[in-house]
Amino acid sequence: MEKLTIIKVGGKIVEEQESLQQLLADFKSISGNKILVHGGGRSATAMAARMGVETRMVDGRRVTDEAMLEIVTMVYGGLVNKNIVAGLQALGCNAVGFTGADMDIIRSVKRPVKEIDYGYVGDVIDVSTKELSIMMDQGISPVMAPLTHDGKGQMLNTNADTIASELAMALSKHYNVRLIFCFEKDGVLSDPSDDASVIYELNQQLYNEYKNDGTIAAGMIPKLDNSFKALHNGVKEVLITNAKNLTRQSARGTLIKLETENNRD
Amino acid sequence: MEKLTIIKVGGKIVEEQESLQQLLADFKSISGNKILVHGGGRSATAMAARMGVETRMVDGRRVTDEAMLEIVTMVYGGLVNKNIVAGLQALGCNAVGFTGADMDIIRSVKRPVKEIDYGYVGDVIDVSTKELSIMMDQGISPVMAPLTHDGKGQMLNTNADTIASELAMALSKHYNVRLIFCFEKDGVLSDPSDDASVIYELNQQLYNEYKNDGTIAAGMIPKLDNSFKALHNGVKEVLITNAKNLTRQSARGTLIKLETENNRD
Repeated sequence: MEKLTIIKVGGKIVEEQESLQQLLADFKSISGNKILVHGGGRSATAMAARMGVETRMVDGRRVTDEAMLEIVTMVYGGLVNKNIVAGLQALGCNAVGFTGADMDIIRSVKRPVKEIDYGYVGDVIDVSTKELSIMMDQGISPVMAPLTHDGKGQMLNTNADTIASELAMALSKHYNVRLIFCFEKDGVLSDPSDDASVIYELNQQLYNEYKNDGTIAAGMIPKLDNSFKALHNGVKEVLITNAKNLTRQSARGTLIKLETENNRD
Repeated sequence: MEKLTIIKVGGKIVEEQESLQQLLADFKSISGNKILVHGGGRSATAMAARMGVETRMVDGRRVTDEAMLEIVTMVYGGLVNKNIVAGLQALGCNAVGFTGADMDIIRSVKRPVKEIDYGYVGDVIDVSTKELSIMMDQGISPVMAPLTHDGKGQMLNTNADTIASELAMALSKHYNVRLIFCFEKDGVLSDPSDDASVIYELNQQLYNEYKNDGTIAAGMIPKLDNSFKALHNGVKEVLITNAKNLTRQSARGTLIKLETENNRD
């Protein structure tokens, strides 16, 4: 199977010109099939403020009423996505921007209301990979905005980490998938107050231990649960790292596999 | 050669739910290869007003400063485009939304400043059709927003009529192209005050006569010049009509060919 690298970058990196330019250059330099998944939350919040629309977050997740859906559709699907695509084209990297509605790539269902009504937020139910493969066979790199649709005409706001891991799982049937989550730290830390305390390798057994004894901060648990779910569903490896480590020879960061080399000894 | 229908619809049709739904149903019912090119000017103007950005028009063309470019990139590339794509998916029509930056489909150059500085407005210099053909071979219908890029990272605002005719000309090398401009009248009128005065057929000779004797209103000249340019560059026929005539058995409107049947007699 061919290699495929899926990179998820948060809003902060793609919303500042300097870090965006570095990221785009790094992304271009990755050989083989590649997909970029981006956020854009800070831009959406800033745009909402300019339009007099209130941003409400619950447990770090955006509550998406009708006015906010309009904003994220514009900002993620239009502004952020097209600036990334145009920036990659300028570097000679042939990119194409998609939401989940395009070619019906990612279909979702509006999240059922329990204690909290998140509004127009989509939980992924189906991923179609055929068209993405056709694009990549042409040497074209998809750039995915964190938006999906319900198949009934409704756009839905969807977490970018989820988009990245759902794509990774679905595409792992046809590719050797490496999934990279970029964020502002060098990796998962054993001491949140010490940026040098990176845990360089994690496997399922170690993760369970660290989770139980409190070594890993609660805020990292969803991303790591997501990572192990991806690994249990065909993804070869997950790397959690700083965007600026992307093109280092030996990519530093937290490398996550179901079983690490040491374990097999 | 296979048939290809390219339909350009103005902002008014795609910005109102009722006319949009009718248009999407009509578009879905067209058999064979098809591309939808949309505007969105009214939405951009409304969004600008909400954001306190002034809309300036010169000769019916939008002056696009940096603030307005941000708005049209969001509104055309995000809001309008993705709502059309999600709406087509809901009808079972597999659509994909693009700007000219995506897959480098339409490259343009920032319009040189003469008497008027239109700002970030692009004049088309190159159209790449290979990827559009690959999409259409998969039964997927492209939906084009009126945005292009300069290949150096800059998005540019580009007239939707121009996008439609440039695509039509480039694709006529590989398809029998029929180009349809939809607007609010039933066709080109010989008396602007009488909606029933539709000129049902136009060829180059008739057009020259009508243009010289003032039968055709000045406002229609750019669209018609555009149409004849397309016909002189490989497009089979151009129809100027009301969006609601799209799926009639015998499509009414102004049918434009270089030579009409009567002429050959």
